[in-house]
Amino acid sequence: MRVEDLVLVSVDDHVVEPPDVFERHLAAKYKDDAPKLVRKDSGIDVWSFQGMELPNIGLNAVAGRPPEEYAMDPTSFDQMRSGCYNVHDRVKDMNANGVLGSMCFPSFPQFTGQLFARTAMKDPDLGLALLQSYNDWHIDDWCGAYPGRFIPLALPVLWDPELAAEEVRRVNAKGCHAVTFSENVTKLGYPSIHSEHWDPFFAACEELGMIVCLHIGSSSQMVITADDAPMDVLITLTPINIVQAAADLVWSRTLKKFRNLKFALSEGGTGWIPYFRERIDYTYERHRFWTGQDMGDRRPSQVFDEQVVVCFIDDPVGVELRHKMNIDMVTWECDYPHSDSTWPTSPEFVMKQMADVPDDEIDKITHANAMRLFQFDPFTTLGRENCNVGALRAQAEGWDVSIKAQGIKATGTGAVDLLKAANSRS
Amino acid sequence: MRVEDLVLVSVDDHVVEPPDVFERHLAAKYKDDAPKLVRKDSGIDVWSFQGMELPNIGLNAVAGRPPEEYAMDPTSFDQMRSGCYNVHDRVKDMNANGVLGSMCFPSFPQFTGQLFARTAMKDPDLGLALLQSYNDWHIDDWCGAYPGRFIPLALPVLWDPELAAEEVRRVNAKGCHAVTFSENVTKLGYPSIHSEHWDPFFAACEELGMIVCLHIGSSSQMVITADDAPMDVLITLTPINIVQAAADLVWSRTLKKFRNLKFALSEGGTGWIPYFRERIDYTYERHRFWTGQDMGDRRPSQVFDEQVVVCFIDDPVGVELRHKMNIDMVTWECDYPHSDSTWPTSPEFVMKQMADVPDDEIDKITHANAMRLFQFDPFTTLGRENCNVGALRAQAEGWDVSIKAQGIKATGTGAVDLLKAANSRS
Repeated sequence: MRVEDLVLVSVDDHVVEPPDVFERHLAAKYKDDAPKLVRKDSGIDVWSFQGMELPNIGLNAVAGRPPEEYAMDPTSFDQMRSGCYNVHDRVKDMNANGVLGSMCFPSFPQFTGQLFARTAMKDPDLGLALLQSYNDWHIDDWCGAYPGRFIPLALPVLWDPELAAEEVRRVNAKGCHAVTFSENVTKLGYPSIHSEHWDPFFAACEELGMIVCLHIGSSSQMVITADDAPMDVLITLTPINIVQAAADLVWSRTLKKFRNLKFALSEGGTGWIPYFRERIDYTYERHRFWTGQDMGDRRPSQVFDEQVVVCFIDDPVGVELRHKMNIDMVTWECDYPHSDSTWPTSPEFVMKQMADVPDDEIDKITHANAMRLFQFDPFTTLGRENCNVGALRAQAEGWDVSIKAQGIKATGTGAVDLLKAANSRS
Repeated sequence: MRVEDLVLVSVDDHVVEPPDVFERHLAAKYKDDAPKLVRKDSGIDVWSFQGMELPNIGLNAVAGRPPEEYAMDPTSFDQMRSGCYNVHDRVKDMNANGVLGSMCFPSFPQFTGQLFARTAMKDPDLGLALLQSYNDWHIDDWCGAYPGRFIPLALPVLWDPELAAEEVRRVNAKGCHAVTFSENVTKLGYPSIHSEHWDPFFAACEELGMIVCLHIGSSSQMVITADDAPMDVLITLTPINIVQAAADLVWSRTLKKFRNLKFALSEGGTGWIPYFRERIDYTYERHRFWTGQDMGDRRPSQVFDEQVVVCFIDDPVGVELRHKMNIDMVTWECDYPHSDSTWPTSPEFVMKQMADVPDDEIDKITHANAMRLFQFDPFTTLGRENCNVGALRAQAEGWDVSIKAQGIKATGTGAVDLLKAANSRS
């Protein structure tokens, strides 16, 4: 396979919400209470909401910037590449990177809509109205603008499992097959997935084939080993920390009760999975007699293989070990416009890791698994011949993807304080 | 290579301290204040010390028990296999398992002597006296009883880095080449390894070639994802949690400043290392410009390869991936008498994973690396021909290693509470 022949569907990208996100779908009576984008005297854009100011963190929108200008600092729309928030430019950026399909996680409402859940604690009607209008904007406006280019991803009603089930039904009827959730919902103050609390929500997801997506960091808790640890420690550990969610899932009653329910570990990487599968089976063999664990007719690794979707950005070890996991659950992600993204040379990164992989396995990992699991069919919409890297890049001819310095000065120090402040908002 | 030809040196086992641990080496004036073993009316043996009662947790001494009787509950010496605490029977248990050499971590003083450090907060003289007499007992009595069979391992003076350096010099002069430390010392209330605080201690360790051993759980913090998470979650995550210590080490100033200093990740497994090495290099390539990280002439993976010793109990994935890590730093452990141990059939477990491994690499992993790194030379002491599995097992003929039910009823529920209680003592 040549680079131009790759078909790339990314199951983890990010949208920076544009100023008009609440304009078209929110009932008039809630308009005054909705978050508003305001520019501060410092030139920073923040979402003003219920007395809070919620900035966009620079590190979450660095596509097109030189690495020297990556930083944790709050940022403005002027400092971002327009593809971060403008769907037309986003598709051009996808084309230039040869990416056919993309599933986009939210930014300022946080990965699983924590902002709206906090709102609902004081005002349930407003919380629900904001969440539903966000989902409508995401599905109808963002994804709807370019049929065949986006995998819709809904936010859940965290504060009420029955309402969560209803919202899942509502968005599913609009063609949405994925919903976010927290990698550890107890850290957000809710009952765990070991309880029966979420059963109505999970039952609806199973019935409808909605994949529950757990993004790294969605517990609103970063891994801070020490206050004076370099930022590099946190950056290293954030993806692998998803192993805690993986362990919770495998041993939970939830995956036993809902055997057709699937979870995705978003941005979790894959190279650690063979070790993890070995560890859960060893644990089961040696400890189940006293822990009282009963997996029925399955081994723990089989539960993981059947019900957990995984993905990677750049993970040669994971690709090499693909036969030590369920290759039919391995997907790929671009992570645009975050700092770990391989944009705008993702096809070249992908091909480098796939040098020794047979074509049918490349296809599974790069797009076929994602299309099957998320019920996403761009080939029918767009025509198979228009979907590969070569065809998409041809459409982007003349679109500028050069890296541009903006004169932003990165401030490494104080980054942990910023993160802690962000965490404390959870 | 046949099973009988294996030579096994284990870098992680555990001693349950016998009642006379403070008898021979503690100055008379401290005798009354030393921990004393007392039997409670319930039949449980506890260490009584400064108003506390410190039990031995059953899960830490299950060798010889059927898995149905593993449990977190406190236990008595009568319920343990004598090899847990009696050095003569320990060596017989090692022989029966074909294990030549063993490095033993402490039990009731905790992995890095937290008990004595807490004592020292109120009474520094008593804390130091207890710690030094423990080290003397461990080196002279436990290890000294059978030359060539044990790798001595000292406890550190956690509360004073200068004193810690002195104690390292003292035990090194007695032939000790390893010292324990915490996987995350900030969780114990001390400055991190990113600070200059520990420099006197680490400088002494580097100078003397003392390996600093970080055992899983030595931060006194277990990974509890949710209060109602099954015990299996915690058991799964405890080893892989060492990845946090690995990240701290790689990015620390400590490993840059002391380039000949080596750390060991005790009971950390190895299958996750190829992924981890890839992740730290990716992090360095993409983020160093704004984090300000400077590794000089080394890549992060090279720092890990040169300065971090790793080990595994049973890890076929790790063995298969041995060329994606520094094979000269890979060692093996038995974990006797803990619940993850492969005793008394360790040689068979080892051989099963090594089926496709060349003899010279088997030798490195099973003993040669450990002997070189910990300056341990049983061949000279005992004669090479007496050191392999076949020869040792022949010495143990007639020694009963059969698994014996004791009528202990495992209580799975409440285990998390017990762990939390144990953690709160940290």
